Amino acid sequence: MNALSNPSASLKTGKGRIAFLGPVGTFSEEAALHYIKGQETRGDSFGAAGERLEPFPSIPAVALAVASGIAEEGVVPIENSLEGSVTYTLDILIQEDRLSIRRELVLPIEHCLLVKPDTRASDIQTVYSHPQALGQCRDFLERCFPKAQLVASLSTVAAVEDMKQSPTPAAAISPRRAAELHSVEILAQGIQDNPSNATRFVILASSDHPLTGRDKTSLCFSFAEDKPGLLYNVMGEFARRNINLAKVESRPTKRSLGQYIFLIDCEGHREDAIVKEAIEAVRGQTSMLKIFGSYPRWREPTTS
Amino acid sequence: MNALSNPSASLKTGKGRIAFLGPVGTFSEEAALHYIKGQETRGDSFGAAGERLEPFPSIPAVALAVASGIAEEGVVPIENSLEGSVTYTLDILIQEDRLSIRRELVLPIEHCLLVKPDTRASDIQTVYSHPQALGQCRDFLERCFPKAQLVASLSTVAAVEDMKQSPTPAAAISPRRAAELHSVEILAQGIQDNPSNATRFVILASSDHPLTGRDKTSLCFSFAEDKPGLLYNVMGEFARRNINLAKVESRPTKRSLGQYIFLIDCEGHREDAIVKEAIEAVRGQTSMLKIFGSYPRWREPTTS
Repeated sequence: MNALSNPSASLKTGKGRIAFLGPVGTFSEEAALHYIKGQETRGDSFGAAGERLEPFPSIPAVALAVASGIAEEGVVPIENSLEGSVTYTLDILIQEDRLSIRRELVLPIEHCLLVKPDTRASDIQTVYSHPQALGQCRDFLERCFPKAQLVASLSTVAAVEDMKQSPTPAAAISPRRAAELHSVEILAQGIQDNPSNATRFVILASSDHPLTGRDKTSLCFSFAEDKPGLLYNVMGEFARRNINLAKVESRPTKRSLGQYIFLIDCEGHREDAIVKEAIEAVRGQTSMLKIFGSYPRWREPTTS
Repeated sequence: MNALSNPSASLKTGKGRIAFLGPVGTFSEEAALHYIKGQETRGDSFGAAGERLEPFPSIPAVALAVASGIAEEGVVPIENSLEGSVTYTLDILIQEDRLSIRRELVLPIEHCLLVKPDTRASDIQTVYSHPQALGQCRDFLERCFPKAQLVASLSTVAAVEDMKQSPTPAAAISPRRAAELHSVEILAQGIQDNPSNATRFVILASSDHPLTGRDKTSLCFSFAEDKPGLLYNVMGEFARRNINLAKVESRPTKRSLGQYIFLIDCEGHREDAIVKEAIEAVRGQTSMLKIFGSYPRWREPTTS
C-alpha cells in the first residue's frame, strides 16, 4: 500500500528519531549510540536506542531525512584525522538551509580483524574490507598477512558478510560493533597503522543548541571578488575581539576551480555578545555568510 | 636474482623516470601522460612515455621512489573538487624533507561505463567500481540501472578485470584510458553526478621550479601555543604586502586533536623579493615553517 492509496495517512512524527549513515554496525551508528548514551547521562533521553535509530544509505539521505522531518536528528561524519574533511557533509551544510549543527562528538576509529569462530590466523587467505580501511591497515597486513589476497567490499560492514560467504578461510577489517552484530570473533584489535585515527561527527537538526558557556560556532562565507587581504580582514574581526579560531578551511565552489568558500569554526556561541558583533562585522565584508550553528564543544566524557 | 647476490649492481639512474600512483590506467597515469605531453610541447622531453612511466602501489611508495632516486619525479593527487584534500599527500609533504613540489596540473575527472564488446545496457546486472566512484555516479546508476547490483573493486582499474570475469553481464565505472588498455567498449561517458569533478595533481621532485613570473608557493607552519590571532598575524604578513592567498587549510597534527598545522598557497615565487620577505617574517612568528616549493601556476593548455 503506497501513500496514494491511503489518503488519510498522516506524517508520522520523527520526534526523538535519529538518522545515521548506515548500514547498522558502522562507525556512524557507534557515534549515534554514544550520543544517545550522553543524552541518558544528561537525563534527556527519549526512549530505547533500538526504536530511535534509523540507518540511511548516504550522507545526503541522512540530511534529507532530517530536513523533511522523517527524523529529528541525523549523525554524519564531518572530519577524520587521517582523511581530512568529509566534503559531502560540508557541501550539505553550505547548500541546505533547513539544517543546523546541534552537537559534535569525536570517536576514536579502531579497526578490528574479524573471523568466523575457530579460524586461525595462519589459515587466512583473503582479507575483505572497504579500500580505505585496507589502506589504513596496510602495515599490519603487510607484516602479519603478506600473502593474503585483499578484496574490496562496499563498506566495512559489508566486509563481514563477504568474509562469512568466502570460499577460502578469510578475515574482515571492520568496527568492533560489527562483531557483536554478526556473531563472529575478533582476532585482532587496534590494527590501524596510525593510532591517532579519530573522526568528528556532527548531529544535524532543524535548530542548533542553546548557549552553554563552553560553545563553538561553525560558519561559512565567500567574497564576490578575489583580491589579497579579504580573508585576512575577516579574520581580523575575530582576532581583535580575542576570539580563537579552531579551524579555517577553504573549499572550491563547485562552479569553478579557483573560487572559494571559506569555513571557520570559532570559539563561543552566536548569542555571545562579542561573537555576535564579530559575525555582523564579517557579514558586511562578504557576499554570502551562513551560520551552520552554535553547539557545545566536545569534551571527552569523564568516567568518574 | 636479488640485489645481495649481485654485489656489482649499481643504482640505475632514475633520470627522466616518472613514478605515478598505479596501476596503469588510473587518473594519476593520465595526469603523468598529460605532464609528459606538456614537456614535449615545451621541448624538454626525455624519451618515450612508455619507457619513463612507472606505477607504484601507493602515494607513500611514489614519494619514496622519488626521495630514494628510483624516479626523478612522481605524480600524485593533492586535491579533488568533490572529496577535498588528499591528506596522504599533504602529510608526506609535511614529513618528508627530501621532496618539493615542482609543478601542478589540473585534470577533469570523467567516469565512463565500460562493458565487454556487444553488451547491451538492458543486459547489465552488475556494476563494478571503487566505492568512491560508485558514490560519485549514484544518480546515474539509480536512474539508468536501478536494479543492478553494485559491487566494490579495489580501484577503478581493477573494476575492469572484475567486470571481464563477471559470471553475469556486467559493467565497470572506470577512466576512459582503462578502455583503451583492456580492449573493452565505452557504453556511456561523463556519468559522474557533478560535472565539475576535477583533481589537482602535483609533480614531486628533489627540487622545486625556477622562477617563471607566474608562480605559486606552497608552505606549512605551526605554532608552539594555541592563542587567538596567531594565524591572523601570519596572514597579515602576506596581506600587507598585497600577496594573494590561493588556499588556507588547517590539518590536525597526528599527535593530538586540537593541535593544527596550517597550509597556505600564496601567489608568487619564494625568490620574489616580497614573497621572500613575507616568508622570513612568518618564520619569526612560528615554531615550524616548511616551504613545499614554488612552481608555475596551472594554466589550461591552449589548443590554438
